[in-house]
Amino acid sequence: MTTIPADADTALPRAVLLREVLARLGDKWTVIVICRLNAGPRRFNELKRSVEGITQRMLSATVRRLERDGLVSRTVTPTVPPQVEYALTDAGRSLHSVLYPLAEWTDGHLGYIETSRAAYDAASPPSD
Amino acid sequence: MTTIPADADTALPRAVLLREVLARLGDKWTVIVICRLNAGPRRFNELKRSVEGITQRMLSATVRRLERDGLVSRTVTPTVPPQVEYALTDAGRSLHSVLYPLAEWTDGHLGYIETSRAAYDAASPPSD
Repeated sequence: MTTIPADADTALPRAVLLREVLARLGDKWTVIVICRLNAGPRRFNELKRSVEGITQRMLSATVRRLERDGLVSRTVTPTVPPQVEYALTDAGRSLHSVLYPLAEWTDGHLGYIETSRAAYDAASPPSD
Repeated sequence: MTTIPADADTALPRAVLLREVLARLGDKWTVIVICRLNAGPRRFNELKRSVEGITQRMLSATVRRLERDGLVSRTVTPTVPPQVEYALTDAGRSLHSVLYPLAEWTDGHLGYIETSRAAYDAASPPSD
């Protein structure tokens, strides 16, 4: 982990770290799982049913990474068979709250981005 | 581009689209270039000098993608040689403004995430 001097220009290190977080969030399932768990705690199979197309293996890997980062908690109730429940932690909920404006931005700019791309491609055919 | 029915549960499509945006933002240079241009318009070489480690080829590809999405404008002044200046568009500035809370979240949670990972790894040695 790189140390950031307190008096350094913080724009670049912050951008670098943000990029790492975004790259993780940009994986195929992380944001969907965070959104689903923001609605409330879920057992593994409930969560799996609510995330269309995810495999058991991918969901396991996704919740394990989120649990490792302290964004999701995993609670085991010692019934037979044991029940395992996943929930967002306080940090996970706070991440969801800052993701939300970005989700709204995305929603609000999809048409704009599509239109921009069409105009760009019409004006400059692909070269490389 | 997938059509989203107006009456559908919007959480999943929004999450899917957000994921696409995040995956793009999570590439190696996009967020840094957006942060640099938020400070003001820059000529190509100025921009290149302000993004440590970027190659000419990577910067060209990054600004071209941002320009195609309508997030960066490219203005050519017909001097000899021509001057090319890049700037955030209104949409690019609005994206920066919703990225900023996520950047602050990241800044504020780096220690937390590191601590969580260390605790998780100590409790459960890697299995697969």
